[in-house]
Amino acid sequence: MVDEIRYTPIGTIHSPFTDEEGMPIQGGFSEATGTVELDPEFAAGLCDIEGFSHVVLIYHFDRSEGYDLTPEPYMEDEPHGVFATRAPRRPNPIGISVVALIGVEDSVLTVQGIDVLDGTPLLDVKPFVPTFNGVEDARIGWLEDAIGNEARRRADDRFLD
Amino acid sequence: MVDEIRYTPIGTIHSPFTDEEGMPIQGGFSEATGTVELDPEFAAGLCDIEGFSHVVLIYHFDRSEGYDLTPEPYMEDEPHGVFATRAPRRPNPIGISVVALIGVEDSVLTVQGIDVLDGTPLLDVKPFVPTFNGVEDARIGWLEDAIGNEARRRADDRFLD
Repeated sequence: MVDEIRYTPIGTIHSPFTDEEGMPIQGGFSEATGTVELDPEFAAGLCDIEGFSHVVLIYHFDRSEGYDLTPEPYMEDEPHGVFATRAPRRPNPIGISVVALIGVEDSVLTVQGIDVLDGTPLLDVKPFVPTFNGVEDARIGWLEDAIGNEARRRADDRFLD
Repeated sequence: MVDEIRYTPIGTIHSPFTDEEGMPIQGGFSEATGTVELDPEFAAGLCDIEGFSHVVLIYHFDRSEGYDLTPEPYMEDEPHGVFATRAPRRPNPIGISVVALIGVEDSVLTVQGIDVLDGTPLLDVKPFVPTFNGVEDARIGWLEDAIGNEARRRADDRFLD
């Protein structure tokens, strides 16, 4: 098996969120607008992306250190396996967010529904395609009850470094 | 900005697909069953994952080399920006797939709807949650016409090394 994989960020995500506390924990709970600034060398890779209403951002949780295999996630005070949560402290701290694409100019995307910290390193952008990404009637385990709890939709300090 | 990000695979994805030609190009087009074998040290991280009907696999396209900013994707013979496609040859060759979770035993997940090559290094597993990942009425740009073309739903040799 490959021992180590190396990636280089292709740009930076900018958002109104400078620290984790109070940040919406998932884009589905956010109406915040942000920008996704790709290095200009990748601008050609955005050709035709404006036809998609939503894109998937893949990024590195750069302010997350270490991991806990059974964290208490934001949504509930019970521990769950880290792979059954979206907690940022993961063995490989990779985050994904589906955001609405509201503008493209040169190598910069303007997006809505952002839920990442300002300055987060961007690894990849993919088009959001319901046929590939969507499952309408999915069961959502421990989140079934927790997801209705509005009060738990923002981050607190539990995953701060 | 961070120059380089290093990840270590947490396991391996096994599928019936030993080469890219003929492989379903997206899980939405596949009914193939596969296994996701995590290193046993991460088994505790799977606690409660069985409550989710679907999971998101994040993996490294280990047989993809280099990239093309404006490839002709599988679904159409027109070039599009790589970030408006799911082509495996990307600046950071990271793949994501939503698959149905049909079993969990120790550190092994059995999944359906797999669309990755056998032996692909696994980077992360996240629960699939429609509120976070799903957008029912998304516009899908150039794929709008192409997606109806059944004949184009399998890979050919265009991204082979």
